[in-house]
Amino acid sequence: MRVTRASDYAIRVMIQLATLPKGERQSLPALARSTDVPVSFLAKILKSLSQAGLVLPRRGAIGGFELLPKGHRATMRDVIEAVEGPIILNTCLASRHACHRRLCCPAHPVWKKAQAALLAVLGTSPIAELAAAQKESASPT
Amino acid sequence: MRVTRASDYAIRVMIQLATLPKGERQSLPALARSTDVPVSFLAKILKSLSQAGLVLPRRGAIGGFELLPKGHRATMRDVIEAVEGPIILNTCLASRHACHRRLCCPAHPVWKKAQAALLAVLGTSPIAELAAAQKESASPT
Repeated sequence: MRVTRASDYAIRVMIQLATLPKGERQSLPALARSTDVPVSFLAKILKSLSQAGLVLPRRGAIGGFELLPKGHRATMRDVIEAVEGPIILNTCLASRHACHRRLCCPAHPVWKKAQAALLAVLGTSPIAELAAAQKESASPT
Repeated sequence: MRVTRASDYAIRVMIQLATLPKGERQSLPALARSTDVPVSFLAKILKSLSQAGLVLPRRGAIGGFELLPKGHRATMRDVIEAVEGPIILNTCLASRHACHRRLCCPAHPVWKKAQAALLAVLGTSPIAELAAAQKESASPT
């Protein structure tokens, strides 16, 4: 029951991109340096984030990656789900038909409550706010 | 970020054992039938539960498995941790030294909060209560 390394890295890179002034981009090697993520792995993660409409890849001499408006509004939950798919703590929460024991299983409501508690935190933690906190802690006092 | 099938099954079997009158036991094939878990997989799960001191295996003609006092007091968290080890949502929560970015990473406090929210639910859901709910729903009205 642990987040994948890809999601962890995706959150890092989204926070990094959200610290840039609006419309600015950062190259893949620069992003890799500032997030401590290997370039090849980061390229795959950025592909998922691009496909989810959170990040825009720009080619050319001053190419790189920038956040799209959807990325600016994204929460930690959105980023994880862009990389891993929907957060589902247990199979029985996937759909009504995922487990035939669902209706009589006393653990099912607990899983539902645990999932809601988890999503309540991750779904209300905007990347933009985390980036603002990072900028603040990095700025000289 | 999903619980393993082994943990899901472990919770099923713990609930089943907790529905038995105190001191009673159930054989492996009977447990497999009542939990819809394959016998060979269930045997491995029961080994983990025994090693964690939650369940007592008894050999012989009227052998089988019964809950130990620790198993009667166990929560869903205890059962999952008996099978998977400690619940750790992200590597940075494993120890102080697990991630060198921990102190400056704005996502770290969110992971900490998400983990606390998850554990608050799983750690306050006693197997004995779930078994009582199961018995109640199964009893004729």
